[in-house]
Amino acid sequence: MVNPVVPSSGALTPLGLDAVRLASGFWGDRVALNGEVIIAHCQEWMEKEGWIGNFRGDLPRRGREFSDSEIYKLLEGMAWAGHPALPELASAVAGAQKEDGYLNTRWNDDRYSDLEWGHELYCYGHLIQAGVARLRTHGEDEFTEVVRRAADHVCDRFMHSTQTCGHPVVEMALVELYRATGTERYLEMARRFVERRGTPALDDIPFGRAYFQDDMPVRRAEVFRGHVVRAVYLASGAVDVAVETGDDELLAAIEAQWERTVARRTHLTGGMGSHFIDEAFGEDFELPPDRAYSETCAGIGSIMLAHRLLLATGRVRYADLAERTMYNVLATSPASDGRSFFYANPLRVRVPAPPPEGVNLRADGGLRSPWFTVSCCPNNIARTLASLPAYLATTDQGGVQIHHYASGEIRHGGLLLRVETDYPRSGAVTVRVAEGGGPARLSLRIPNWAHGSTLGQVSPGGVDERVVEPGYAVVERDWRPGDEIRLGLPMAPRWTRPDPRMDALRGCAAVERGPVVYCAESPGDEADLDGIEVGPAAPVEHDAGGTVEVEVEAVRGRPPGGAWPYTTGTRPAAEPGEETRLRLVPYHGWGNRGPATMRVWLPVRD
Amino acid sequence: MVNPVVPSSGALTPLGLDAVRLASGFWGDRVALNGEVIIAHCQEWMEKEGWIGNFRGDLPRRGREFSDSEIYKLLEGMAWAGHPALPELASAVAGAQKEDGYLNTRWNDDRYSDLEWGHELYCYGHLIQAGVARLRTHGEDEFTEVVRRAADHVCDRFMHSTQTCGHPVVEMALVELYRATGTERYLEMARRFVERRGTPALDDIPFGRAYFQDDMPVRRAEVFRGHVVRAVYLASGAVDVAVETGDDELLAAIEAQWERTVARRTHLTGGMGSHFIDEAFGEDFELPPDRAYSETCAGIGSIMLAHRLLLATGRVRYADLAERTMYNVLATSPASDGRSFFYANPLRVRVPAPPPEGVNLRADGGLRSPWFTVSCCPNNIARTLASLPAYLATTDQGGVQIHHYASGEIRHGGLLLRVETDYPRSGAVTVRVAEGGGPARLSLRIPNWAHGSTLGQVSPGGVDERVVEPGYAVVERDWRPGDEIRLGLPMAPRWTRPDPRMDALRGCAAVERGPVVYCAESPGDEADLDGIEVGPAAPVEHDAGGTVEVEVEAVRGRPPGGAWPYTTGTRPAAEPGEETRLRLVPYHGWGNRGPATMRVWLPVRD
Repeated sequence: MVNPVVPSSGALTPLGLDAVRLASGFWGDRVALNGEVIIAHCQEWMEKEGWIGNFRGDLPRRGREFSDSEIYKLLEGMAWAGHPALPELASAVAGAQKEDGYLNTRWNDDRYSDLEWGHELYCYGHLIQAGVARLRTHGEDEFTEVVRRAADHVCDRFMHSTQTCGHPVVEMALVELYRATGTERYLEMARRFVERRGTPALDDIPFGRAYFQDDMPVRRAEVFRGHVVRAVYLASGAVDVAVETGDDELLAAIEAQWERTVARRTHLTGGMGSHFIDEAFGEDFELPPDRAYSETCAGIGSIMLAHRLLLATGRVRYADLAERTMYNVLATSPASDGRSFFYANPLRVRVPAPPPEGVNLRADGGLRSPWFTVSCCPNNIARTLASLPAYLATTDQGGVQIHHYASGEIRHGGLLLRVETDYPRSGAVTVRVAEGGGPARLSLRIPNWAHGSTLGQVSPGGVDERVVEPGYAVVERDWRPGDEIRLGLPMAPRWTRPDPRMDALRGCAAVERGPVVYCAESPGDEADLDGIEVGPAAPVEHDAGGTVEVEVEAVRGRPPGGAWPYTTGTRPAAEPGEETRLRLVPYHGWGNRGPATMRVWLPVRD
Repeated sequence: MVNPVVPSSGALTPLGLDAVRLASGFWGDRVALNGEVIIAHCQEWMEKEGWIGNFRGDLPRRGREFSDSEIYKLLEGMAWAGHPALPELASAVAGAQKEDGYLNTRWNDDRYSDLEWGHELYCYGHLIQAGVARLRTHGEDEFTEVVRRAADHVCDRFMHSTQTCGHPVVEMALVELYRATGTERYLEMARRFVERRGTPALDDIPFGRAYFQDDMPVRRAEVFRGHVVRAVYLASGAVDVAVETGDDELLAAIEAQWERTVARRTHLTGGMGSHFIDEAFGEDFELPPDRAYSETCAGIGSIMLAHRLLLATGRVRYADLAERTMYNVLATSPASDGRSFFYANPLRVRVPAPPPEGVNLRADGGLRSPWFTVSCCPNNIARTLASLPAYLATTDQGGVQIHHYASGEIRHGGLLLRVETDYPRSGAVTVRVAEGGGPARLSLRIPNWAHGSTLGQVSPGGVDERVVEPGYAVVERDWRPGDEIRLGLPMAPRWTRPDPRMDALRGCAAVERGPVVYCAESPGDEADLDGIEVGPAAPVEHDAGGTVEVEVEAVRGRPPGGAWPYTTGTRPAAEPGEETRLRLVPYHGWGNRGPATMRVWLPVRD
């Protein structure tokens, strides 16, 4: 199974990189860009910044206390991508391992002296994920031996401790290493790390223990809270543990936490996080667009979690959120040339920010940067795009499920399915049996926004078309080569309104088209986006070459002047604004034309 | 002049603590609480936390790198209040001074090695302000000698440097020490610190140089930006330098920056700051109520700045903003018992926060805390309340100006004015000549919200009343004992609406009454404040014992359920909500009845 997640049980079994291949298209092009540009870009920057040199013993040590993890994330990406630079980089890592398996370039005699912030177990987590990727793409070698020895060291040191790490990730890594090797103590260690958290297992910190989810036991929480990446990584590990140990209560707890988080703490883009100060969730319905942190890594973690929950339960809504997050967070972060990245992904940018030329000290949302002082996002993009085909399709007894549509091939059993689509540019998806056949159930996900979709079965006599509703459209038949299914997803752009409890979005609407959130962007000298109000008419799409753009009716008002911006009594009658049409572009493509202001949520005309 | 700010020129001359005495009333009670409780509370906590012990050489040193400044702020407060604990505390400070005048318990051989974050000059600034207070209330002594030696050391070390401090305050302190002593090099040092900033004078930091206003020269900026306390302290120092050096260009630049900041970056309460992460201003119109940082110290700094601009120019709008900030930030921070404080003052709190029992590690806005790890606010409250009478009235050639109304006495020349009022509970203010007389011009500030105010001159034949408009109402006559002026400020509660460019406030209104901002508070088991929409009818006030409360029409809706909080297409017809009346209380009094949710801005019914 060439796959980052291989549960031993659950509703669905993922199809891996050996079964799913992408052709050119929205995702195929990004996966190709990753292999050709992004992975090398990351390696170059980590060489330049000295983070790789740390493993060679270069002094002084450079980078933050967690910089080792960045090399490991890139190694994982290289493994999935079959990148030729892996062996040399892995060899540098191996050279820094101590006799007893300990491996960290930041800590030495003072190892494990600061579990709250030290990130040692966090680094092991990413090391282990890289090792699993290597095992599954290549098999055992010097590097996987390094990883096993590190994992054994973790078990020796922490099996009977009461402590854990300030940043979860080792939990899901250890479960996966158990799945890849069959060594049960890795699972037991992961289980203990999950159970131990919130007892509490860590000292208090200025942000409070909720920051690293140590405020209460995992199975007792009601919602995700604190640092978003930590929260969704921990929940992913908890799902993995629950699935492998048959702990239905734990699985149900994570499902309930996810439900409330998605219903109350998630941006329209699928992004999560409202607080810049601690990269954390806000309270329920606290979702300010201009302070939407929506860290790229949080989106990736949310996709990882939704994927695990989908595999465990088969419930379509996990795939729905994953798709939303893929198109509007994962696809948004890298620039179109693959050489700069968003760290934060706010839904409103008020002042155009020039792109930095070098390392960005700050995790601002208004600009893509080639590298960051805390540069978790580029490597996370690299490993996620490298393994992306493994997120698209699954199997169960007697069937194949396609959750996300991208041109390419899916192979399962004797069956080779060819998918052809330029989704999300259009909503037409063709699935054809290219080779093989036999009785099988093919399930196609109809996204939750896709009311009135059509599913056609092509036969020599014509197309037998029916309307299918959101959920899974199932075709069960005896397949033969040449058989073809045509899915039609309705792609008309649509207005979307927020829950009235979202204070920051009151009186606004946004445009979505298929899974893609749109935004108004105002680059260069164009008029800014203050004072715009949009009209009620349906948005109109038009093809703009590579992308579909949307136009909406709008009025550009003249903002009031005044020395004090609050007015007592009835508001003065607004001056009639200038009628205009506002052009919207896919949110994932914004900021590629230079410094710009941007807004997803548009004030609606009274 | 017993006064923290004594400019040698300018439109107005402040009346100090020797001229203005407060009787019981809104401010008189708070000034008394400060002398009886708050100052001692601060001293006890700093003794307990070891920050005072640092001066005695206790090891290990405790507190943050700027904790010395807290003792200095308290010393300043003690000086203004004539507190008996001052000499002993001042003596502890004196013991830590080095031969060459250097004085800091955090730094030693590595002095001035981290000007960006070291806060050494910042600490001198507060030391000097304490010294000025001691000079003006007591005269020279051992402590003022310590302060002069420290100031001389600063001049020796920095006069010909290109550097400055990451946190402004030393600028205004040095100007005041020049004013108090006549030593011109203190003014020159202050001038250089102001001119040097933004050249740049400091290294870049992750927040960016705008954080400490080192991104551009002071006189070239167009708006306040970065860390709010730093910004308003720097601007205060720049005004002081401009006034003493006759630098009209610099004064005009600060005035213009203030104008834009007040028109675009100030909360309804007068509070400033939208970003928790760097305690900073947001962009223009970025004023989210739930993430309003509005630090108490920022409000105090804004009052200090507005007071300086008022003295320099005589423009009423500086007094208007100062009053707003006094009633809604300064008065909000301390609990009614004077033993706990808000650090941040958001305008929306969604989840009731229990008050912490000890030191609060966090600067959360939802709770008052007896002490903080960074405990700048309590001591700043202490020194500000101790000197508050000095902010209320001024003189110019031939006249007295009363800017803020509080019961008490104002003495100037041979004239003793007695002010009687329970403002802001009512809008009736009586000013009577208690002693003395002669020709003089009495100016009474009519606040910018007080349209339709009345001013009555009492004579044996009755009251001669006229309507006066916002600005200064002037009565020029030959005064005799017993002469009386009666001011009537209209106190009906009023609806206030935000500028439409404030995204986070769209569709909302707030209630104000006089200078006081109101809020809905939901303590204990009362229904929460989600789903409330208020009606259009005028708010109704009613007396609730010590305070005036306000009621407004409201509908309590049933929030929609749903697994995803964004809805495509037209919104479902809202279920008819329950009609109710919503009680509003003064914002400055919220949170005194236990953990509560709170909101200033209320959604308006469509």
